[in-house]
Amino acid sequence: MFVLGIDPGLSRCGYCCLDTDGRAHTTMAIGVLTTPPDAPVPQRLAELASDLRSLFDELQPQAVAVERVLFQVNVRTAISVGQASGLVLAEAAGRGCEVVEYSPNQVKGAVAGHGAADKNEVATMVQWLLGLSRPPHPADAADAAAIALCHIAISGTTVGAAR
Amino acid sequence: MFVLGIDPGLSRCGYCCLDTDGRAHTTMAIGVLTTPPDAPVPQRLAELASDLRSLFDELQPQAVAVERVLFQVNVRTAISVGQASGLVLAEAAGRGCEVVEYSPNQVKGAVAGHGAADKNEVATMVQWLLGLSRPPHPADAADAAAIALCHIAISGTTVGAAR
Repeated sequence: MFVLGIDPGLSRCGYCCLDTDGRAHTTMAIGVLTTPPDAPVPQRLAELASDLRSLFDELQPQAVAVERVLFQVNVRTAISVGQASGLVLAEAAGRGCEVVEYSPNQVKGAVAGHGAADKNEVATMVQWLLGLSRPPHPADAADAAAIALCHIAISGTTVGAAR
Repeated sequence: MFVLGIDPGLSRCGYCCLDTDGRAHTTMAIGVLTTPPDAPVPQRLAELASDLRSLFDELQPQAVAVERVLFQVNVRTAISVGQASGLVLAEAAGRGCEVVEYSPNQVKGAVAGHGAADKNEVATMVQWLLGLSRPPHPADAADAAAIALCHIAISGTTVGAAR
Protein backbone atom coordinates (compact mmCIF):
# COMPACT_ATOMS: atom_id res chain seq x y z
CA MET A 1 0.00 0.00 0.00
CA PHE A 2 1.01 3.62 -0.56
CA VAL A 3 1.53 5.60 2.66
CA LEU A 4 1.94 9.37 2.24
CA GLY A 5 3.60 11.21 5.12
CA ILE A 6 3.10 14.97 5.28
CA ASP A 7 4.82 17.59 7.45
CA PRO A 8 2.44 20.52 6.94
CA GLY A 9 3.74 24.05 6.42
CA LEU A 10 3.07 27.06 4.24
CA SER A 11 6.67 27.93 3.30
CA ARG A 12 7.73 24.29 2.98
CA CYS A 13 5.28 21.38 3.14
CA GLY A 14 7.28 18.13 3.30
CA TYR A 15 5.96 14.95 1.68
CA CYS A 16 7.16 11.38 1.32
CA CYS A 17 5.27 8.52 -0.27
CA LEU A 18 6.34 4.96 0.59
CA ASP A 19 5.14 1.77 -1.06
CA THR A 20 5.17 -0.74 1.80
CA ASP A 21 4.08 -4.23 2.72
CA GLY A 22 4.57 -3.34 6.40
CA ARG A 23 8.23 -4.44 6.49
CA ALA A 24 9.96 -3.46 3.22
CA HIS A 25 9.47 0.06 1.87
CA THR A 26 10.17 1.65 -1.51
CA THR A 27 10.42 5.44 -1.69
CA MET A 28 8.03 6.51 -4.45
CA ALA A 29 8.35 10.28 -3.97
CA ILE A 30 10.00 12.63 -1.50
CA GLY A 31 10.29 16.41 -1.48
CA VAL A 32 8.68 19.67 -0.44
CA LEU A 33 5.88 21.84 -1.77
CA THR A 34 6.83 25.51 -1.43
CA THR A 35 5.01 28.80 -1.75
CA PRO A 36 6.61 32.25 -2.20
CA PRO A 37 7.07 33.91 1.23
CA ASP A 38 6.38 37.39 -0.17
CA ALA A 39 2.96 36.49 -1.65
CA PRO A 40 -0.27 37.17 0.31
CA VAL A 41 -1.23 34.29 2.64
CA PRO A 42 -4.57 33.52 0.91
CA GLN A 43 -2.75 33.19 -2.46
CA ARG A 44 -0.13 30.94 -0.88
CA LEU A 45 -2.83 28.72 0.67
CA ALA A 46 -4.62 28.47 -2.70
CA GLU A 47 -1.33 27.49 -4.34
CA LEU A 48 -0.62 24.87 -1.68
CA ALA A 49 -4.16 23.46 -2.03
CA SER A 50 -3.66 23.16 -5.79
CA ASP A 51 -0.24 21.50 -5.38
CA LEU A 52 -1.69 19.05 -2.84
CA ARG A 53 -4.46 18.09 -5.27
CA SER A 54 -1.84 17.39 -7.95
CA LEU A 55 0.26 15.36 -5.50
CA PHE A 56 -2.71 13.23 -4.42
CA ASP A 57 -3.78 12.80 -8.05
CA GLU A 58 -0.30 11.54 -8.94
CA LEU A 59 0.39 9.32 -5.93
CA GLN A 60 -3.10 7.98 -5.06
CA PRO A 61 -2.13 7.10 -1.45
CA GLN A 62 -4.31 4.73 0.57
CA ALA A 63 -3.13 6.09 3.94
CA VAL A 64 -2.04 9.63 4.83
CA ALA A 65 -0.07 10.36 8.02
CA VAL A 66 0.16 14.00 9.10
CA GLU A 67 2.18 15.66 11.85
CA ARG A 68 -0.18 17.06 14.46
CA VAL A 69 -0.01 20.82 15.02
CA LEU A 70 1.01 21.73 18.57
CA PHE A 71 0.75 25.44 19.22
CA GLN A 72 3.12 25.49 22.15
CA VAL A 73 5.96 24.34 19.88
CA ASN A 74 6.21 27.36 17.60
CA VAL A 75 3.74 30.17 18.19
CA ARG A 76 5.19 32.32 15.38
CA THR A 77 4.32 29.87 12.63
CA ALA A 78 1.45 28.09 14.41
CA ILE A 79 -1.26 29.95 12.49
CA SER A 80 0.08 29.18 9.03
CA VAL A 81 1.00 25.59 9.95
CA GLY A 82 -2.54 25.09 11.27
CA GLN A 83 -4.00 26.52 8.06
CA ALA A 84 -1.76 24.27 5.93
CA SER A 85 -2.67 21.20 8.00
CA GLY A 86 -6.36 21.98 7.46
CA LEU A 87 -5.83 21.79 3.69
CA VAL A 88 -3.93 18.50 3.97
CA LEU A 89 -6.47 16.78 6.27
CA ALA A 90 -9.46 17.96 4.19
CA GLU A 91 -7.88 16.83 0.91
CA ALA A 92 -6.94 13.42 2.31
CA ALA A 93 -10.27 12.71 4.02
CA GLY A 94 -12.24 14.07 1.06
CA ARG A 95 -10.61 11.41 -1.13
CA GLY A 96 -11.48 8.61 1.27
CA CYS A 97 -7.92 7.99 2.45
CA GLU A 98 -7.24 6.64 5.92
CA VAL A 99 -5.97 9.75 7.78
CA VAL A 100 -3.97 9.60 11.01
CA GLU A 101 -2.23 12.40 12.91
CA TYR A 102 0.91 11.84 14.99
CA SER A 103 2.59 14.18 17.45
CA PRO A 104 6.23 15.22 16.83
CA ASN A 105 7.28 13.11 19.83
CA GLN A 106 5.50 10.02 18.49
CA VAL A 107 7.27 10.46 15.14
CA LYS A 108 10.73 10.92 16.68
CA GLY A 109 10.15 8.04 19.09
CA ALA A 110 9.07 5.66 16.32
CA VAL A 111 11.99 6.48 14.01
CA ALA A 112 14.89 7.39 16.30
CA GLY A 113 13.86 5.56 19.47
CA HIS A 114 13.37 8.63 21.65
CA GLY A 115 11.06 11.64 21.51
CA ALA A 116 13.85 14.17 22.03
CA ALA A 117 15.75 13.26 18.83
CA ASP A 118 17.03 16.26 16.86
CA LYS A 119 16.58 16.89 13.12
CA ASN A 120 19.94 15.34 12.23
CA GLU A 121 19.21 12.12 14.10
CA VAL A 122 15.81 11.84 12.41
CA ALA A 123 17.31 12.48 8.95
CA THR A 124 20.08 9.91 9.53
CA MET A 125 17.60 7.26 10.70
CA VAL A 126 15.35 7.96 7.70
CA GLN A 127 18.36 7.57 5.39
CA TRP A 128 19.19 4.21 6.98
CA LEU A 129 15.61 2.89 7.13
CA LEU A 130 14.95 3.77 3.49
CA GLY A 131 18.39 2.78 2.20
CA LEU A 132 19.05 6.22 0.72
CA SER A 133 22.53 7.34 -0.40
CA ARG A 134 22.30 10.49 1.74
CA PRO A 135 19.94 12.02 4.33
CA PRO A 136 16.85 13.60 2.70
CA HIS A 137 17.06 17.37 2.26
CA PRO A 138 15.52 19.74 3.31
CA ALA A 139 14.59 18.70 6.85
CA ASP A 140 10.86 18.98 6.03
CA ALA A 141 11.23 16.14 3.50
CA ALA A 142 13.08 13.99 6.04
CA ASP A 143 10.37 14.75 8.62
CA ALA A 144 7.65 13.70 6.17
CA ALA A 145 9.48 10.41 5.60
CA ALA A 146 9.72 9.92 9.37
CA ILE A 147 5.96 10.53 9.68
CA ALA A 148 5.23 7.89 7.02
CA LEU A 149 7.61 5.45 8.77
CA CYS A 150 5.95 6.22 12.12
CA HIS A 151 2.55 5.31 10.66
CA ILE A 152 3.92 2.06 9.21
CA ALA A 153 5.56 1.18 12.55
CA ILE A 154 2.49 1.94 14.66
CA SER A 155 -0.08 0.37 12.31
CA GLY A 156 2.49 -2.11 10.96
CA THR A 157 0.97 -5.48 11.77
CA THR A 158 -2.41 -4.54 10.28
CA VAL A 159 -0.88 -2.95 7.16
CA GLY A 160 0.91 -6.16 6.24
CA ALA A 161 -2.03 -8.42 7.08
CA ALA A 162 -4.98 -6.48 5.71
CA ARG A 163 -3.79 -5.27 2.31
CA MET B 1 -20.96 43.75 -5.73
CA PHE B 2 -21.34 40.63 -3.59
CA VAL B 3 -19.32 40.71 -0.35
CA LEU B 4 -19.14 37.43 1.57
CA GLY B 5 -18.24 37.68 5.27
CA ILE B 6 -17.00 34.51 6.95
CA ASP B 7 -16.42 33.76 10.63
CA PRO B 8 -14.36 30.56 10.33
CA GLY B 9 -14.96 27.61 12.62
CA LEU B 10 -15.21 23.84 12.46
CA SER B 11 -18.34 23.35 14.59
CA ARG B 12 -20.07 26.46 13.22
CA CYS B 13 -18.71 28.49 10.31
CA GLY B 14 -20.76 31.68 10.00
CA TYR B 15 -21.40 33.27 6.59
CA CYS B 16 -23.25 36.31 5.31
CA CYS B 17 -23.39 37.53 1.72
CA LEU B 18 -24.36 41.15 1.11
CA ASP B 19 -25.13 42.75 -2.25
CA THR B 20 -23.85 46.31 -1.82
CA ASP B 21 -23.13 49.49 -3.75
CA GLY B 22 -21.03 50.71 -0.81
CA ARG B 23 -23.95 52.41 0.99
CA ALA B 24 -27.11 50.28 0.62
CA HIS B 25 -26.88 46.54 1.32
CA THR B 26 -29.22 43.64 0.56
CA THR B 27 -28.78 40.42 2.54
CA MET B 28 -28.49 37.64 -0.05
CA ALA B 29 -27.69 34.79 2.36
CA ILE B 30 -26.92 34.41 6.06
CA GLY B 31 -26.37 31.31 8.16
CA VAL B 32 -23.86 28.78 9.44
CA LEU B 33 -22.15 25.71 8.00
CA THR B 34 -21.92 23.01 10.66
CA THR B 35 -20.07 19.72 11.01
CA PRO B 36 -20.88 16.94 13.50
CA PRO B 37 -18.75 17.38 16.67
CA ASP B 38 -18.41 13.62 17.15
CA ALA B 39 -16.94 12.92 13.69
CA PRO B 40 -13.14 12.71 13.19
CA VAL B 41 -11.53 16.10 12.50
CA PRO B 42 -10.25 15.20 8.99
CA GLN B 43 -13.80 14.14 7.99
CA ARG B 44 -15.22 17.35 9.41
CA LEU B 45 -12.67 19.45 7.51
CA ALA B 46 -13.48 17.58 4.27
CA GLU B 47 -17.19 18.23 4.85
CA LEU B 48 -16.57 21.93 5.54
CA ALA B 49 -14.41 22.22 2.39
CA SER B 50 -17.21 20.66 0.32
CA ASP B 51 -19.86 22.95 1.88
CA LEU B 52 -17.66 26.00 1.23
CA ARG B 53 -17.29 25.02 -2.44
CA SER B 54 -21.09 24.76 -2.74
CA LEU B 55 -21.54 28.13 -1.00
CA PHE B 56 -19.04 29.87 -3.31
CA ASP B 57 -20.60 28.17 -6.37
CA GLU B 58 -24.03 29.47 -5.34
CA LEU B 59 -23.10 33.00 -4.26
CA GLN B 60 -20.19 33.86 -6.62
CA PRO B 61 -18.83 36.63 -4.33
CA GLN B 62 -16.38 39.20 -5.69
CA ALA B 63 -14.91 40.01 -2.26
CA VAL B 64 -14.47 37.73 0.75
CA ALA B 65 -13.82 39.13 4.24
CA VAL B 66 -12.59 36.67 6.87
CA GLU B 67 -12.05 37.06 10.60
CA ARG B 68 -8.37 36.75 11.38
CA VAL B 69 -7.41 33.94 13.75
CA LEU B 70 -5.78 35.19 16.95
CA PHE B 71 -4.45 32.35 19.06
CA GLN B 72 -4.37 34.25 22.31
CA VAL B 73 -8.17 34.67 22.17
CA ASN B 74 -9.17 31.03 22.49
CA VAL B 75 -6.39 28.49 22.73
CA ARG B 76 -8.78 25.55 23.08
CA THR B 77 -10.36 26.00 19.64
CA ALA B 78 -7.43 27.82 17.99
CA ILE B 79 -6.22 24.76 16.10
CA SER B 80 -9.55 23.90 14.49
CA VAL B 81 -10.38 27.56 13.79
CA GLY B 82 -6.98 27.94 12.10
CA GLN B 83 -7.60 24.82 10.02
CA ALA B 84 -11.07 26.06 9.02
CA SER B 85 -9.71 29.51 8.11
CA GLY B 86 -7.11 27.85 5.88
CA LEU B 87 -9.90 26.20 3.89
CA VAL B 88 -11.82 29.48 3.56
CA LEU B 89 -8.80 31.56 2.47
CA ALA B 90 -7.61 28.93 -0.04
CA GLU B 91 -11.08 28.53 -1.57
CA ALA B 92 -11.60 32.30 -1.89
CA ALA B 93 -8.16 33.10 -3.31
CA GLY B 94 -8.25 30.04 -5.60
CA ARG B 95 -11.39 31.49 -7.23
CA GLY B 96 -9.77 34.87 -7.78
CA CYS B 97 -11.86 36.69 -5.15
CA GLU B 98 -10.47 39.73 -3.37
CA VAL B 99 -9.64 38.33 0.09
CA VAL B 100 -9.15 40.49 3.18
CA GLU B 101 -8.71 39.46 6.81
CA TYR B 102 -9.90 41.62 9.73
CA SER B 103 -9.15 41.26 13.43
CA PRO B 104 -12.08 40.80 15.85
CA ASN B 105 -11.43 44.30 17.22
CA GLN B 106 -11.53 45.85 13.74
CA VAL B 107 -14.88 44.14 13.09
CA LYS B 108 -16.43 45.23 16.37
CA GLY B 109 -15.05 48.74 15.99
CA ALA B 110 -16.44 49.12 12.47
CA VAL B 111 -19.92 47.83 13.34
CA ALA B 112 -20.49 48.81 16.99
CA GLY B 113 -18.12 51.77 17.29
CA HIS B 114 -15.77 50.19 19.83
CA GLY B 115 -13.51 47.13 19.82
CA ALA B 116 -14.80 45.83 23.16
CA ALA B 117 -18.41 45.37 21.99
CA ASP B 118 -20.01 42.11 23.15
CA LYS B 119 -21.88 39.58 20.99
CA ASN B 120 -25.30 41.11 21.77
CA GLU B 121 -24.19 44.62 20.79
CA VAL B 122 -22.74 43.30 17.53
CA ALA B 123 -25.90 41.31 16.73
CA THR B 124 -28.14 44.30 17.50
CA MET B 125 -26.07 46.63 15.30
CA VAL B 126 -26.11 44.06 12.47
CA GLN B 127 -29.90 43.82 12.79
CA TRP B 128 -30.21 47.60 12.56
CA LEU B 129 -27.68 48.09 9.72
CA LEU B 130 -29.28 45.36 7.59
CA GLY B 131 -32.91 46.23 8.49
CA LEU B 132 -33.63 42.73 9.78
CA SER B 133 -36.72 41.92 11.86
CA ARG B 134 -34.57 40.31 14.57
CA PRO B 135 -30.88 39.86 15.41
CA PRO B 136 -29.26 37.09 13.32
CA HIS B 137 -28.94 33.76 15.09
CA PRO B 138 -26.65 32.02 15.97
CA ALA B 139 -23.94 34.51 16.95
CA ASP B 140 -21.59 33.10 14.27
CA ALA B 141 -24.01 34.26 11.55
CA ALA B 142 -24.24 37.73 13.13
CA ASP B 143 -20.44 37.86 13.35
CA ALA B 144 -20.13 36.94 9.67
CA ALA B 145 -22.52 39.77 8.79
CA ALA B 146 -20.43 42.15 10.94
CA ILE B 147 -17.28 41.03 9.08
CA ALA B 148 -18.92 41.76 5.69
CA LEU B 149 -20.12 45.16 6.97
CA CYS B 150 -16.61 45.88 8.32
CA HIS B 151 -15.14 45.24 4.86
CA ILE B 152 -17.71 47.48 3.21
CA ALA B 153 -17.05 50.26 5.75
CA ILE B 154 -13.25 50.08 5.47
CA SER B 155 -13.08 49.64 1.70
CA GLY B 156 -16.34 51.57 1.23
CA THR B 157 -15.30 54.46 -0.97
CA THR B 158 -13.46 52.22 -3.43
CA VAL B 159 -16.26 49.64 -3.53
CA GLY B 160 -18.77 52.28 -4.59
CA ALA B 161 -16.43 53.95 -7.08
CA ALA B 162 -14.71 51.00 -8.71
CA ARG B 163 -17.53 48.53 -9.37
